[in-house]
Amino acid sequence: MTTAALFTDLYELTMVAGYQAAGRADEQATFDLYFRHPPAGVDLVVACGLDPVLDYLETLHFDTEDLAYLSSLSLFDEAFLSFLRRLTFRGDVWAVPEGLPVFSDEPLLRVSATLAEAQLVETYLLNRICYSSLVASNAAQLTRAARGKPVLEFGARRAHGPDGALTGARAAMIGGCGATSNVAAGQRFDVPVSGTQAHAFVMAFATELEAFRAYAATFPDTCILLVDTYDTLGSGVPNAITVAHELASAGHQLKGVRLDSGDLASLSHETRRLLDAAGLPDVQIIASGDLDAERVRELEQLNVPIDGYGVGTSLLTARRDPALSGVYKLAEIGGSPVMKLSGSPAKATSPGRKQVWRSDTGDVIGLHDEELEGEPLLVEAMRGGKRRLPHADLGQLAQRSRQAVAVVHPKVVTGEWSVRSSPRLDRLRAATLRHVRQGLGS
Amino acid sequence: MTTAALFTDLYELTMVAGYQAAGRADEQATFDLYFRHPPAGVDLVVACGLDPVLDYLETLHFDTEDLAYLSSLSLFDEAFLSFLRRLTFRGDVWAVPEGLPVFSDEPLLRVSATLAEAQLVETYLLNRICYSSLVASNAAQLTRAARGKPVLEFGARRAHGPDGALTGARAAMIGGCGATSNVAAGQRFDVPVSGTQAHAFVMAFATELEAFRAYAATFPDTCILLVDTYDTLGSGVPNAITVAHELASAGHQLKGVRLDSGDLASLSHETRRLLDAAGLPDVQIIASGDLDAERVRELEQLNVPIDGYGVGTSLLTARRDPALSGVYKLAEIGGSPVMKLSGSPAKATSPGRKQVWRSDTGDVIGLHDEELEGEPLLVEAMRGGKRRLPHADLGQLAQRSRQAVAVVHPKVVTGEWSVRSSPRLDRLRAATLRHVRQGLGS
Repeated sequence: MTTAALFTDLYELTMVAGYQAAGRADEQATFDLYFRHPPAGVDLVVACGLDPVLDYLETLHFDTEDLAYLSSLSLFDEAFLSFLRRLTFRGDVWAVPEGLPVFSDEPLLRVSATLAEAQLVETYLLNRICYSSLVASNAAQLTRAARGKPVLEFGARRAHGPDGALTGARAAMIGGCGATSNVAAGQRFDVPVSGTQAHAFVMAFATELEAFRAYAATFPDTCILLVDTYDTLGSGVPNAITVAHELASAGHQLKGVRLDSGDLASLSHETRRLLDAAGLPDVQIIASGDLDAERVRELEQLNVPIDGYGVGTSLLTARRDPALSGVYKLAEIGGSPVMKLSGSPAKATSPGRKQVWRSDTGDVIGLHDEELEGEPLLVEAMRGGKRRLPHADLGQLAQRSRQAVAVVHPKVVTGEWSVRSSPRLDRLRAATLRHVRQGLGS
Repeated sequence: MTTAALFTDLYELTMVAGYQAAGRADEQATFDLYFRHPPAGVDLVVACGLDPVLDYLETLHFDTEDLAYLSSLSLFDEAFLSFLRRLTFRGDVWAVPEGLPVFSDEPLLRVSATLAEAQLVETYLLNRICYSSLVASNAAQLTRAARGKPVLEFGARRAHGPDGALTGARAAMIGGCGATSNVAAGQRFDVPVSGTQAHAFVMAFATELEAFRAYAATFPDTCILLVDTYDTLGSGVPNAITVAHELASAGHQLKGVRLDSGDLASLSHETRRLLDAAGLPDVQIIASGDLDAERVRELEQLNVPIDGYGVGTSLLTARRDPALSGVYKLAEIGGSPVMKLSGSPAKATSPGRKQVWRSDTGDVIGLHDEELEGEPLLVEAMRGGKRRLPHADLGQLAQRSRQAVAVVHPKVVTGEWSVRSSPRLDRLRAATLRHVRQGLGS
């Protein structure tokens, strides 16, 4: 068995080898993890992924098999491999709690550790935080579009690998989804699972009605029938109504029908009309089929009688923009602030050990030892390699997220929300810039 | 520990429970896994992901913890849980070998098993095949754009979860990438790893030159210096040239420089000019920084002196279109062909147990017991739950892929490649359609 320690870009290891050979590996360094701009189609980013990051940092080590592989690359000398053999993460982490809104250029995570430890963890941290925050943000966007109607995460089949699906399901729940179709996610994260039947089930029986009856017999109280296998209004809904009456006469109740194709606006209105006319006002209508936040918003603007949305591909692959532009940048080394210049000013980094203060009207990014108005956004997540935050309860994270987003999002939309840096940080940036430029000129 | 068996949409389990309660679970069924249209930006899809699918099928079972969780959902009765306790996959799988080009509506995978077994594996199979094929296709597209120059996979940090990154790295190598930055992928799949330094390394030293010297001292023969931290042409390249001369006088050679921002076309020309003028014609130029196939093609059309490309986000997140529209549809049950109608004809399915024959001019999709011109594309991958294909060697898969794509792709571009169905399959489709419509009318 290899460990998660090998989950790293090779250059983290070659850089650490360079630091170690130069006698710099044990210097204290601070890195910021932040994103440069929100993903397309997302108007508020929700921080996510901290809990698995803390698990990783707490257990980081290289085992014998890891080291044997690294040795086989003929890149590293024995002194460096010995160094890795002893390495664990003993640093400090301050982070934005999962579920809270966060903005471009604000540190989501601040890592202070030896240069070696802080550098080595870059790839894993970015991997975990970027994708989780991306999905949580998309889930929150969808939940807003659905105006409080439940959004169900159905994306396991199109997610990027099984673990991508699990990570995505967790983030979707934190961002506001009501359930996931992914049973492994339900088990691992203790969240509701949801799902009923696919077209194959209907096709496996001689007639649609026979299929519906078989399914209803097995799940008489939780049955949602998929009505679009052959002809939604011509056969699917009428057959569902027949089964609903049969269930009712046996003391049960059909829970709902699912529309998975076609013009969902007109189909949902017609389906509602047929169900109501049959005396079935409590039978729900669930819609699915290549939905995304934009499509859900359009449907809701038409006041469709849809009771819940199943969203898969667009949510777990973040189809509109599948990468959060997260970066992990050195901000301080040996107590001195540093920054990267760049041809494009947007890519210049911000020096020093930072904190964010959140008030009713926005955020101020300042230096960690300032005292600014508002609540500090980054909390101490790890000290000396030991976790300071308990393992997260997903229900609580989701609730906190909903509350925080409800406060911040309206102000973002109206432009009442500002994000700026403190005068002291501005001065430090200017001074560091001069220092770097002098260094280049010298 | 739970097993991979729980990695499934809940509805696979509720459907299997429905089949089992109806006495249908043991009927023989055949499902096809195929995609409806290629992802945007990809003009040839490369099949990928079979090997992990066979691993999953060979080991599929529910353990005590899986069953305890399912029992806790209060959805399934004891008879069904007992049924799951005994379940393994004993079916047959025919599949397109990894690395070969494949087209819309052609089965990539054909699963024949009991209805229960074949249904249960849907989510996992789609998850594995869709994402892997997506990345392999994107990697092949990039390799073509780079006109044979090496493309390095740098996407671990932006991939969707750690496992997404590993799955993606494997697919990228099959599709034609020359190396991956992901050390865990190198270890697991025995493929070359690549990478040198990030901006943080340069920033961690007082001057860029000091950083370059420290790195070159550690890796005197494999050193690629990142030259854009402060000023590519003003400081980065001149400092790299200084270090190159120092290395040369110690009997070593600077391997290359990396450009990671700015106008790569003009920067690469200027960098080449400076290196050549300094007597360093063998120092390579590697380019990276939000590259994708389109950008690489544009650069190559300008005949840039770039020797290799590092591509991350766009490759592993398949940014242009992050989901292959893969579906898994019932084609035959109890020996009888079935099909799904649909409001949109493109979503209608194709009945019967199928094979694809590939000739010099295209593919014909026919029924498995036909004898058509060309080579059968689907091979027997598993019989009675036992693997018939050996574990894949990634180097061999990549080579086979390169050869097959080189034959097929030019014909696709010129329109000389056709994909059609056999007359017998057409007749079966028409007959099944009539049969389904009669069933609905009755």
